[in-house]
Amino acid sequence: MQDFDNFFSAKSIAIVGVSRDSRKVGHVIFRNFVDTNYDGNVYPVNISGEEILGKKTHKSILDIKEKLDLVIIAVPAAAVFGVIEQCHKKKVSHVVMVTAGFKEEGQFELDRKLEKLLAKYKIKVIGPNCLGTFDAYSKLDSLFLPRYRLQRPKEGGISFVCQSGAVGSSVLDLATDEGYGFSKFVSYGNAMNVDEADLIEYLGKDEKTKVICLYVEGVKDGKKFMRVASEVSKKKPIIAIKGGKTAEGGKAAMSHTGAMAGSAEVYSGVFKQTGVIETNSLEEMFETAKMLEKLQKPKGSRVLVITNGGGYGILSTDAIIKNGLQMAQLSKDSIKFAKTNLPRVQPHNPIDLLGDANTEGYRNAIQMALADNNVDIILAIVLYQTPLVTTDVVDVIIEARDMKKKPLVIVSAGGEFTDVLSRSVEDNNVPAYTFPENAVRAIKHFVDYYGK
Amino acid sequence: MQDFDNFFSAKSIAIVGVSRDSRKVGHVIFRNFVDTNYDGNVYPVNISGEEILGKKTHKSILDIKEKLDLVIIAVPAAAVFGVIEQCHKKKVSHVVMVTAGFKEEGQFELDRKLEKLLAKYKIKVIGPNCLGTFDAYSKLDSLFLPRYRLQRPKEGGISFVCQSGAVGSSVLDLATDEGYGFSKFVSYGNAMNVDEADLIEYLGKDEKTKVICLYVEGVKDGKKFMRVASEVSKKKPIIAIKGGKTAEGGKAAMSHTGAMAGSAEVYSGVFKQTGVIETNSLEEMFETAKMLEKLQKPKGSRVLVITNGGGYGILSTDAIIKNGLQMAQLSKDSIKFAKTNLPRVQPHNPIDLLGDANTEGYRNAIQMALADNNVDIILAIVLYQTPLVTTDVVDVIIEARDMKKKPLVIVSAGGEFTDVLSRSVEDNNVPAYTFPENAVRAIKHFVDYYGK
Repeated sequence: MQDFDNFFSAKSIAIVGVSRDSRKVGHVIFRNFVDTNYDGNVYPVNISGEEILGKKTHKSILDIKEKLDLVIIAVPAAAVFGVIEQCHKKKVSHVVMVTAGFKEEGQFELDRKLEKLLAKYKIKVIGPNCLGTFDAYSKLDSLFLPRYRLQRPKEGGISFVCQSGAVGSSVLDLATDEGYGFSKFVSYGNAMNVDEADLIEYLGKDEKTKVICLYVEGVKDGKKFMRVASEVSKKKPIIAIKGGKTAEGGKAAMSHTGAMAGSAEVYSGVFKQTGVIETNSLEEMFETAKMLEKLQKPKGSRVLVITNGGGYGILSTDAIIKNGLQMAQLSKDSIKFAKTNLPRVQPHNPIDLLGDANTEGYRNAIQMALADNNVDIILAIVLYQTPLVTTDVVDVIIEARDMKKKPLVIVSAGGEFTDVLSRSVEDNNVPAYTFPENAVRAIKHFVDYYGK
Repeated sequence: MQDFDNFFSAKSIAIVGVSRDSRKVGHVIFRNFVDTNYDGNVYPVNISGEEILGKKTHKSILDIKEKLDLVIIAVPAAAVFGVIEQCHKKKVSHVVMVTAGFKEEGQFELDRKLEKLLAKYKIKVIGPNCLGTFDAYSKLDSLFLPRYRLQRPKEGGISFVCQSGAVGSSVLDLATDEGYGFSKFVSYGNAMNVDEADLIEYLGKDEKTKVICLYVEGVKDGKKFMRVASEVSKKKPIIAIKGGKTAEGGKAAMSHTGAMAGSAEVYSGVFKQTGVIETNSLEEMFETAKMLEKLQKPKGSRVLVITNGGGYGILSTDAIIKNGLQMAQLSKDSIKFAKTNLPRVQPHNPIDLLGDANTEGYRNAIQMALADNNVDIILAIVLYQTPLVTTDVVDVIIEARDMKKKPLVIVSAGGEFTDVLSRSVEDNNVPAYTFPENAVRAIKHFVDYYGK
């Protein structure tokens, strides 16, 4: 078990290769630390020693007096070796190397040379050819993409380990926009001496991480991955998507990160055996992650659907059955309760509160479901377009969540008005989805994970 | 072939049952006409005859002097019959009846009585128990949901025929928010004497409608549906989703609209036989619709992928193969062109322009693809997070689209910055998607429709 804390919360950091050109990688990284007023000492290093963003720079990390927890390297490939020698002299043990130009560009000799040097000096590297790391709690942010183009997510329980910088960054940006909360993000690039298994092992021990998401093109060490994934998936869910599952996709992966893609069946088998949840798309991965992040373990797979739109009740029912889940059968007590408190509603699943459902109707139906031992999971469709659904229905949802009796999942499709209310629901730890099919797909993974 | 123009662009309209209570259905409908300054004469009718929203009301439609093209009825079920008698006297032939309380609430006798009366007077009705109609061009808007909760879409080529008011309204709201353009929307409720087949036949002749979307729980007249769908699908695509495909979902459908759901296989068979594109989710339906709305017929199913994110190239390749499409093989001319004009790029599909791709790289790659006879469809992934992709790349995309040589589809995942640029792309008739898997799923339907 390795200690990677320095990659995510180092207190003294040097950034080597910070130019004055605001579009250059080193500059962007330094600016991120300045803009977020990072709680630590950050030293820009530039061979010219000129001032950048109003801060003094050093010509070399050897000129910095303080001990360095982390060095971020953004110089060209040829200049990397000198910096590593300096890291050794400074007793630096952790490096993030965004520099490209190694094996991914056919520079195998340079690659081996660097690997040997790092082994000799016992320096752990994220990269090379990576996007870097981000920690939503410490705010350590070595991503070299400008914040106006790539938003950074708020604090939360999802950590994302991503072999592709482009997939990682764009999904991080999108997830931020949709209100997802993250703990740690790492784009590990060529995985020279820190690979996906090392990172998963570390995140398994990270208290802030509740769910681990993984985009992988090729696993570096199969046995190690299987050992680590089996252990960690018992403690917290790992959700993976494998790029290059088809023969053609595998060929593309080989020329992308030099990864030996391996057959689809082998990977699916490994994921299954190690308790890793495999998804078929990025959308499915993150929609599943937020459910696992926000909700407690369900008792079973019996779902009760509550809706103010009959069509959605039907589509949800279809999705539940197609996914091999069960439609909950209401208990006698519930039926009795419904006859008194929901007189116009037919007391069977899906419970259609009708188009003129009001907040009181939702309150009664949800309370009934929470009390019914035949119901394991509540899927409530709430369409905010009808005037009688007042915004207090959000309070009803949050109150039900606060009781923590059962997982509660919301579906609401709509425009701006709906978005505002769905975001309120999610900010209170109730996962909300736009489409019933997507919500049920996530419920299926959720139930399977805990049903193992 | 029936003339339903009055349902969508009547010039003299009475709304019966407009109360002063701003939450009541009739009031909301009248307000929509006032707020949009409808280009026609709109007469609110209220038995009390009081002034509403500063407008004089009539006590009965018989007090209105002008001939009426359309009457919108929003009075309770018991009061409907009197209004229909008046419609007959006024020689009204088209009615939108939002009133509920007929067979869907077990009132079968009332239902039959109304049906007979309408037949006797040859009055065509949308409804009862429906949400109403909306036309983005004429602005005729009989939807009884307030505009602050349910946004209305801009003009475009998609028409949506929806058996469920809740599905219709929420999806309309969502689609508006995502920038979809519509021609006509109709929630037809109980389909008393105007059913889905009649509406599809009418939309088949509507010049503004390029693609017809259909949510249906049960087809009213199977033979008629098959005849109409077969004819119309030859002229323009029909995309359908069937609610209640599982046995359990079918039961729910029966208690929702009284529809005989029929088995999944029967419906899938009918859709296939009549050339209707069947989708498995609402998301898939609209993602497919916008591609069919915006793009010209492809020559074949060979897709070229261009990307500035290697991982996305791989995921796209996987999706293309899984969906039974082909990865295009570059021609010799293209390979030669690439060696000169894209020197750092490996000339094979997917074309990875690398993380530091700039606008010029996209221009060269897209021009090469447009000229290559081995390429039928271009799927360009454009990640806007990297600083070298300047916003001019949008111009490159639009220019390529303007040449109308080949279908061009864009994938861009990200937050606000990306959203703004993706919206610009779509506003210029290039369909843009967030995830490669979703884009390829739509391409599959698109190719299949034209490949019939």
